[in-house]
Amino acid sequence: MTISVSQYMLFSLHKILEVLHKLPAESKQVERKVLISLVSFFNISPQLPDGQDLPLPPVILGELVKDPQKPTVCFYGHVDVQPAKKEDGWKTDPYKLTEINGNLYGRGATDNKGPVLAWINAVETFKAMPVNFKFVIEGMEEAGSLGLEKLLQEEKQCFFSDVDYIVISDSLWLSNKKPALTYGSRGNACFFVEVECGSKDLHSGTFGGIIHEPLMDLIALLDSLVDHTGRIQIPGIYDSVASLTEEERKLYESIEFNLEEHKNNSGVKKFLYGTKEEILLHLWRYPALSIHGIEGAFHEPGIKTVIPAKVIGKFSIRQVPNMDLSVVVEHLESVFSKRNSPNKLKVSMPLSAKPWLADVNDPLYKAARKAIKTVFREEPDFIRDGSTVPVARMFQTIMQKSVIMLPIGAADDGEHSQNEKISRHNYIEGAKMFAAFFLEISKLHRHLHETSNMETNN
Amino acid sequence: MTISVSQYMLFSLHKILEVLHKLPAESKQVERKVLISLVSFFNISPQLPDGQDLPLPPVILGELVKDPQKPTVCFYGHVDVQPAKKEDGWKTDPYKLTEINGNLYGRGATDNKGPVLAWINAVETFKAMPVNFKFVIEGMEEAGSLGLEKLLQEEKQCFFSDVDYIVISDSLWLSNKKPALTYGSRGNACFFVEVECGSKDLHSGTFGGIIHEPLMDLIALLDSLVDHTGRIQIPGIYDSVASLTEEERKLYESIEFNLEEHKNNSGVKKFLYGTKEEILLHLWRYPALSIHGIEGAFHEPGIKTVIPAKVIGKFSIRQVPNMDLSVVVEHLESVFSKRNSPNKLKVSMPLSAKPWLADVNDPLYKAARKAIKTVFREEPDFIRDGSTVPVARMFQTIMQKSVIMLPIGAADDGEHSQNEKISRHNYIEGAKMFAAFFLEISKLHRHLHETSNMETNN
Repeated sequence: MTISVSQYMLFSLHKILEVLHKLPAESKQVERKVLISLVSFFNISPQLPDGQDLPLPPVILGELVKDPQKPTVCFYGHVDVQPAKKEDGWKTDPYKLTEINGNLYGRGATDNKGPVLAWINAVETFKAMPVNFKFVIEGMEEAGSLGLEKLLQEEKQCFFSDVDYIVISDSLWLSNKKPALTYGSRGNACFFVEVECGSKDLHSGTFGGIIHEPLMDLIALLDSLVDHTGRIQIPGIYDSVASLTEEERKLYESIEFNLEEHKNNSGVKKFLYGTKEEILLHLWRYPALSIHGIEGAFHEPGIKTVIPAKVIGKFSIRQVPNMDLSVVVEHLESVFSKRNSPNKLKVSMPLSAKPWLADVNDPLYKAARKAIKTVFREEPDFIRDGSTVPVARMFQTIMQKSVIMLPIGAADDGEHSQNEKISRHNYIEGAKMFAAFFLEISKLHRHLHETSNMETNN
Repeated sequence: MTISVSQYMLFSLHKILEVLHKLPAESKQVERKVLISLVSFFNISPQLPDGQDLPLPPVILGELVKDPQKPTVCFYGHVDVQPAKKEDGWKTDPYKLTEINGNLYGRGATDNKGPVLAWINAVETFKAMPVNFKFVIEGMEEAGSLGLEKLLQEEKQCFFSDVDYIVISDSLWLSNKKPALTYGSRGNACFFVEVECGSKDLHSGTFGGIIHEPLMDLIALLDSLVDHTGRIQIPGIYDSVASLTEEERKLYESIEFNLEEHKNNSGVKKFLYGTKEEILLHLWRYPALSIHGIEGAFHEPGIKTVIPAKVIGKFSIRQVPNMDLSVVVEHLESVFSKRNSPNKLKVSMPLSAKPWLADVNDPLYKAARKAIKTVFREEPDFIRDGSTVPVARMFQTIMQKSVIMLPIGAADDGEHSQNEKISRHNYIEGAKMFAAFFLEISKLHRHLHETSNMETNN
């Protein structure tokens, strides 16, 4: 059975309404009332650069319970997936959930339909919800959450006005067995470096040896960015990166991370660093610079003796908090000026996604840690993501509220890959953990509220 | 009127036969006999790598006169052209010869139909040819003279066995007005530098900062090739390049070359060198290295945060005589080894076209210089070509005989471009010059022969 995004949304909606119908008839009218879900579909359609409107699947905003005494937790999930075909190498129909040896296989099983269903299950377990619950389900995450930011902005003072905490469960544990809490992700700043000598490509027989080739200028610029040990060579780039605290270092020591497995996943022979801690620090905590390619130069198989007239080098810096990126342009301009080249240099930053970093001592993290200990019976790893997680950053920036990424999928779930799965164990225990988390955050919030009231009364 | 390559070949053939018919009836039977042209069509069809045969237009081999007392001059020309359409910006139908203000416009007017017809005209002027004449006309030059080399090899001991001199008129003067003799061309060695970390591209979020990126290794390798002044940085690369002689330097001083015009043609703001002599020396006399591009990296518009797993850098060296290119691989391997990279490096040279250099004191050049002085009333420029001229090198290598490139087209003829032309003046005077050249080479050859006989007799 193949389900489209909109069908799945209707299905999710149906599940939510089921929660209401399942309420025992004998439950008090007031309880029934506060549990009534208000669900709205928001049709978002961002405008393309040419002015055209793009019709997108709607975003579902919903709420369950509205009690001023309770904290309001907002859950974010998405129900769209990456394309998948049986021919890609799937052992089962990617769009039919199939259980094999305790694993639930299917596109979206872990990214992100499984976790979305798990929180619906968690909500179902309560006769009376301990928190006010709001949720956002979108259908464009895999395409960059088109239109979502605008919607969040518009609803900030309305639907989201009373939200206290934001929970995203759209990531994975770092290990196959040990639960994790994600508290940060690197940002990403993409740079285009354009060098141009004129409007037309030249013949290397007729001009080779007498002109300043733009591609040579560009290669020198790109080569000045990183040394062979992986250290970024842009002066000042590390100045604003916070130093590692002892508390932070300790977090890294206890993390369960299979270095050999990660190396095998990459297919490379050797990493730049030898220990688990160094690898994780350089993946999460320190900036990294990657060079992606060159536009405008000869890129096809075979030979073409061309001197390209305009080339655009593309690199990106995975940025960490506090970084000052103005030094990048300064550096490139300085290296270029030393070359005495008559060519035209243009540096631009077409994308700058900021990093996201949460406070691990925030009530959200305390509640989640307790919930994990209760259900999984062990301490979670406190992890970050080397990739950019735009949604976490987007919610944090717009709502100005605490955000947690609370994964229930394991490292080997294979999101976006063939045979994506979530284990039955993670799915069921994950739903329980969400329920435990609701209880913990309501307790902590009440405690904070009382403390704050006491302070006010003093 | 549009003429196909084969139609043109038949037309050329017809013209040759006309020469014979035009012979005055009263001419002695013996003269008539030696002037009989033997013309053969050689069907060449090189095999493609997949074993398939490629049918090509035939090559015409012909001869006029066979007198053991006379030197045998072999003329090479081609009648195929680059594609052209009126919509490309032609003022006239590119396949109809049109005269405007003393210029003959048409595709192939200068490259190479005009010069081919001019030598037919030159041959026509003689009642009794002063030389034995052989000719080669092919129809695949613009596609890289497919099949020609094999044919030359096969006919080396047959058709070409008695050839003394080879004349190619498939180049241009360096100036619009001053005649030139071409005595050399740079070769071209293309290099592929492949760096590979594994079989799959990686995500810069998940692996950026912890791996030795193949593209960074490659960029460092490419950046080590040339400094910002254009000087090749490969140790030893200049060691085998012959030093400039005083005699050679003098040739450069008298050359008519419009530096500003060449700069305007390139569209660049500034050359690496400031004087005519330096520019020409670096275009013809010294090797040049150009970087063409990278295969396997991201080359499209927009952003892709990929770490490419396998990248192939492509550069070429326009080589000059005597160069030892083994230093290129040594240098790259040495730079790479200093990076301590676990990646795999592979350097290959998929193309190595040798340079061609003639002796300007060879009888061919002496005869051509005299003929030019007689017809155009000035000394020719002695020039080289920065690009590779595979045909000159091919004839020189296979025949082991002197080769001259004797252009009659001017610098502004615009070969391969819109509105290609040859001036009526150059066409007519060029034909005369070819005729004068036949006389001069026959005189010089007789003189050499006599001197050599005298030496033998002494």
